[in-house]
Amino acid sequence: MTALPAEFDLIARHFRPLAGQGSLDLSDDAAVFALPVGRELVVSADAMVAGVHFLPDDPPELIARKLLRTNLSDLAAMGAKPFGYLLTISTARSMPDAWFAGFAAGLAVDQVAFGVALLGGDTTSTPGPISLSLTILGTVLPGQAIRRNGARAGDGVWVSGTIGDGALGLLAATDRLADPSGFLAGRYRLPQPRLGLAKFGLVAACMDVSDGLVQDLGHLCRASGAGAEIEAARLPLSDAAHAAGQGYLSLCLTGGDDYELLMAIPAAHEAAFAVHSAAMGIAVHRIGRFVSGDPVVRVHDATGGLIDLPRGGWSHFG
Amino acid sequence: MTALPAEFDLIARHFRPLAGQGSLDLSDDAAVFALPVGRELVVSADAMVAGVHFLPDDPPELIARKLLRTNLSDLAAMGAKPFGYLLTISTARSMPDAWFAGFAAGLAVDQVAFGVALLGGDTTSTPGPISLSLTILGTVLPGQAIRRNGARAGDGVWVSGTIGDGALGLLAATDRLADPSGFLAGRYRLPQPRLGLAKFGLVAACMDVSDGLVQDLGHLCRASGAGAEIEAARLPLSDAAHAAGQGYLSLCLTGGDDYELLMAIPAAHEAAFAVHSAAMGIAVHRIGRFVSGDPVVRVHDATGGLIDLPRGGWSHFG
Repeated sequence: MTALPAEFDLIARHFRPLAGQGSLDLSDDAAVFALPVGRELVVSADAMVAGVHFLPDDPPELIARKLLRTNLSDLAAMGAKPFGYLLTISTARSMPDAWFAGFAAGLAVDQVAFGVALLGGDTTSTPGPISLSLTILGTVLPGQAIRRNGARAGDGVWVSGTIGDGALGLLAATDRLADPSGFLAGRYRLPQPRLGLAKFGLVAACMDVSDGLVQDLGHLCRASGAGAEIEAARLPLSDAAHAAGQGYLSLCLTGGDDYELLMAIPAAHEAAFAVHSAAMGIAVHRIGRFVSGDPVVRVHDATGGLIDLPRGGWSHFG
Repeated sequence: MTALPAEFDLIARHFRPLAGQGSLDLSDDAAVFALPVGRELVVSADAMVAGVHFLPDDPPELIARKLLRTNLSDLAAMGAKPFGYLLTISTARSMPDAWFAGFAAGLAVDQVAFGVALLGGDTTSTPGPISLSLTILGTVLPGQAIRRNGARAGDGVWVSGTIGDGALGLLAATDRLADPSGFLAGRYRLPQPRLGLAKFGLVAACMDVSDGLVQDLGHLCRASGAGAEIEAARLPLSDAAHAAGQGYLSLCLTGGDDYELLMAIPAAHEAAFAVHSAAMGIAVHRIGRFVSGDPVVRVHDATGGLIDLPRGGWSHFG
């Protein structure tokens, strides 16, 4: 009875080296730690399934990093500072050890990049596709979490980075769109969480764009009790998205997997926000304005006409 | 764009009513809340997959309650008090609404029973079996989490409740064992987390028995740097397990899904622990002793001979 069963040996070899303070080396039933005094806890969880959120043959390093980064993006949207995460992994019993080694190596890289550590979790077998879940933990100063409900008529609708690369990248990664540089597929496989960009006091409302810009902006509108008017011509597109052509504009407006931030910024704070974002080296663009009235998102074309979108974004059901 | 996409409608109808303080009504990217002053956070995550941890046709109410209870059991093992949880659910796109209604109804029952509330999570589709993950959050007084590494030679090996019902219950639930009263299948489908039983100061080391008594006791031994000797005749068996017969003893010793507590209790605290457990109405039994030496678990039969067990418990891999 001295040899460790394979499941626990796997945890010890691949995941214990990632374990942070409070994790108790992953050897107990739970992690235990004190929060920094005077800060609130911010917690979020996202799941990812092979064939739905990533391609089954994607390198395990990138699957792991995408899982961690999509969760970090949620904390970025709240204006929170992440410190740790818990992880559950369900794979085939026959999953080779090298897959776990690659998965852990990907986590190790991004743990350093984003200052987080593994606090706990679970590994189980499944007869189905790889199924992953991650719970991210962070903190904010009391009362300084940025909500979705703070947008007011007159505020600018701002986005970070470029929009649409995620959806185009899925097409590229599945050989349905030319992507000579690999830029688009890279954006699909490895999002860039915009930690630190949404700063309390400058940004009145925020969320990350994960299920499609128009749909997600609808969530912000409903939470805030405002409408929004955006101009398609102002949508920041990457060079690769431009190259794909105007025919993909609707997909860029409604596709998922961008993990950029969507923000409401009062006009009075636009100058300070521009300084802040420039200092961080993150491009930001105002694509429209919040307006009073029903929580409806209207997308205008270059002539001022309305673009009709059959749906605003991705839904897992229905 | 005013109608809510099906995924978010589903969350609003079934899960928002379960949302607790700090959840922000599940309408933001993360939950935000302060911890009670002067307490440490205790966090754990477990995954469950249909066909591995529960039967695909089990009632959704019981699947939900088992998921929550197995996680509560981890906090019970740490001597922690739970307050909330995050949940990710992956099901077929075609999963009927009634399944989600039942799942949420099960959670509602146990939220009241155990004083916890939903704080966040994610619902996604999957082409595979139902895949669930839950992260449970609780607190302890500083330094009062009960670890696995506190067992010392001479301490008693104690268990709560009865052992083996979980594994026998899986056989019963799949028509491989007679279970006229349904007791065993009930124990498999609905574990009883022993919150409050493992009390700091009385219990020197603790974990919950989820993967088989002998294997889990091996974990406690490795963490504590001690061996253990247990007597099969002292194993507390339910009437239903007794009725199954002596041929199932080995399964009771090594089967999973009991979610009882396995504890190291110093002889000096046995009397106080007996009073405490009696006051809680939880049966507890000493089944052996920790001993000095290698972290080996020895199981003795009634004549003092050693019972040879081919494996100590469940492993998802290898």
